[in-house]
Amino acid sequence: MEVVPGGVTYPRGFTAAGVACGIKRSGRSDVALILSDRDALAAGLFTTNVVKAAPVLLGAELLRHHPGNVRGILTVSGVANALTGPQGVADNRLLLSRTEEALHLPAESLLPACTGVIGPPLPVGKVLAGLPALSRQMRRGREPDRHAAHAILTTDTHAKMVAVRGRLADGTLVRLGGVAKGSGMIAPRLAAPHATTLAFLTTDARVRPGTLGRLLSHAVDRTFNMVSVDGDTSTNDTVYLLANGAAGGGYAENDPTFRSMVATALERLARAVARDGEGATKLITVTVQGARTASDARSAARAVVGSTLVKAAIFGADPNVGRIACALGYSGARVDPERMDVSLVTSRQEVPLIVAGRPAAGLENGHGRRVRELLLRLDEVPLQIRLHAGRASATAWGCDLSYSYVQINAAYHT
Amino acid sequence: MEVVPGGVTYPRGFTAAGVACGIKRSGRSDVALILSDRDALAAGLFTTNVVKAAPVLLGAELLRHHPGNVRGILTVSGVANALTGPQGVADNRLLLSRTEEALHLPAESLLPACTGVIGPPLPVGKVLAGLPALSRQMRRGREPDRHAAHAILTTDTHAKMVAVRGRLADGTLVRLGGVAKGSGMIAPRLAAPHATTLAFLTTDARVRPGTLGRLLSHAVDRTFNMVSVDGDTSTNDTVYLLANGAAGGGYAENDPTFRSMVATALERLARAVARDGEGATKLITVTVQGARTASDARSAARAVVGSTLVKAAIFGADPNVGRIACALGYSGARVDPERMDVSLVTSRQEVPLIVAGRPAAGLENGHGRRVRELLLRLDEVPLQIRLHAGRASATAWGCDLSYSYVQINAAYHT
Repeated sequence: MEVVPGGVTYPRGFTAAGVACGIKRSGRSDVALILSDRDALAAGLFTTNVVKAAPVLLGAELLRHHPGNVRGILTVSGVANALTGPQGVADNRLLLSRTEEALHLPAESLLPACTGVIGPPLPVGKVLAGLPALSRQMRRGREPDRHAAHAILTTDTHAKMVAVRGRLADGTLVRLGGVAKGSGMIAPRLAAPHATTLAFLTTDARVRPGTLGRLLSHAVDRTFNMVSVDGDTSTNDTVYLLANGAAGGGYAENDPTFRSMVATALERLARAVARDGEGATKLITVTVQGARTASDARSAARAVVGSTLVKAAIFGADPNVGRIACALGYSGARVDPERMDVSLVTSRQEVPLIVAGRPAAGLENGHGRRVRELLLRLDEVPLQIRLHAGRASATAWGCDLSYSYVQINAAYHT
Repeated sequence: MEVVPGGVTYPRGFTAAGVACGIKRSGRSDVALILSDRDALAAGLFTTNVVKAAPVLLGAELLRHHPGNVRGILTVSGVANALTGPQGVADNRLLLSRTEEALHLPAESLLPACTGVIGPPLPVGKVLAGLPALSRQMRRGREPDRHAAHAILTTDTHAKMVAVRGRLADGTLVRLGGVAKGSGMIAPRLAAPHATTLAFLTTDARVRPGTLGRLLSHAVDRTFNMVSVDGDTSTNDTVYLLANGAAGGGYAENDPTFRSMVATALERLARAVARDGEGATKLITVTVQGARTASDARSAARAVVGSTLVKAAIFGADPNVGRIACALGYSGARVDPERMDVSLVTSRQEVPLIVAGRPAAGLENGHGRRVRELLLRLDEVPLQIRLHAGRASATAWGCDLSYSYVQINAAYHT
């Protein structure tokens, strides 16, 4: 298995484009289309928020009825189409069917996604007016990968793409591509069917009908569901995986290489979302080892990466290890305060922060200064926590809390 | 019942003082003592964080053994005495017993509390050196009330005090005083016995042994446990209530006036803690009505007041109502997205924000501008939410998220 340059059109049979339809005030591109040249099997995970955006309700419904006849994903960025009620669903349905007509696609073959401001109606007319340009630009390659990746962004500062290839046990070369957005309102708790993180994977692997959902769910639980920027679980979170079988060969869903390709692509995208958290200056990676159960490991890792105080301390390069211990204490995980160890583990060194429940020696003096210098230098802060309560482990990704986060979110809407 | 000026020494038989022992680098006062001139019944609630500070472990133990022979509370501010293990408990025990000796108090009659940086050991010597000054200054009145209130602060910008008096059904005049601190690491989840919010109540009411804990727990669940500044549940949260019976008369624990005095005092202190949240420019009050159950009402109110995105929007006076709907959606409460109403309700007007699950008309235009102007003007932002799912209600208190929060917490420790 190998990570290669590329995005959603890296697998065979996929094309993409992104255009500006005048929805974002900035004038940036705001509508993305990803297409497969043949029917694809699709699986989707959507937000568990009870207040679900119209594209979430509609996407879940379409996947219930036509999981095997999917031709693509139409994403509108700039409006969430949430708090829009039945009219919002009708608007999105109309947009999809008009797009299908314009592009000579079968009815109900497109999946919807939206991200942006909650409240305003979907600007159907603006998107439809952009269809001719979108249709002309549909193609494979690095450029359309980038165009699609940019068109789904909101407050993100970077496009997020991934491409992986690998050889199945039967010798078939399969490819997988992906794209994601996510910067604020990020604490996805995606369930089947349930994620404003958007992440779309495409693959030319052949997959047996009915198996894609579980495979996706398993991988998302360990990747996107372990990302937190601000603890707010969005109304619009959506992850789609489209498998069009263009690679031929045997079924891939149980092939270890294919499964690790899905996991790798999602982890790369999840890390990219965390690193590009609103206002973030550092990526924070929290690995919990020795937890009693997997659920304990996940809770502990999520609590630390989600703690506002830990995030602010890391922004300030402040070795305030008490806040890490505090977050472990309220995480709900079974933690023995007298046994927990916390370190900063870089590729070059392991720097103790908490040893058997006590602050590491010298943290108030020389050691503390060294930790501070290290924190200032690190672009990624890798916290490793050992609970000595069992054998389960988990990793969570997040980012620091900076002045920019406040600025972005105090001025986002008006 | 009447709220009057005063603090912890307002009830008969109580004295207090606060002195500077050189623990805070600022040189501000950092040790506070509250004493009763006779044995008091005491109840305590402590943090549910698994990583408990030494004074929390010790305070809970003392209350288990001697709930009826309490003479006072010794608070050290500047260090949390957390992550200090058995040595931390031994240090705090030594501090209390030396203080009892110096002030000729019975053994094990003082309760401990600490707040401040997690990690460093309790500076027992510094506190002991301050005892003579503390002892000389013990008295009743507005000045010692203020001194004690200031000495327990950390990043707080204001002292927090309350005093209430009322007449029991049998004609007895009873008094109740209180003091609190709390600015960051504020999301108390206090349980019996369990709350770095500190809040101490004193009363001269006569209370039957064994009844104080439940009374306190009931009131704290509706007040301090409904406050969130940053979602981080501290290692040190502690609420104590001391009742010394100096008012005489009948037992007060079931008297409606006395119960409402306790509730009123705690609500005043809880609001003061929320208003003084780190970096706060506005108090946010969220009242949920028409919830299916009390638990739903509490979850919904806490989710909205705790949402980082709602807090940032209010700091920016941004009528971003989608964030409120989003928080209700992930709160865990049973919410019908098509029925929820949200308004700003001031003493003069009710301003709709969400009506039956849709953004109020004009929110993108003229109405939005009016809401924005109102938000800019309001010192307290009173959000009222109606769920139309039942008859339960709850109120939660919090504050906005400003640049100062980030500054305070990026630079707190070093």
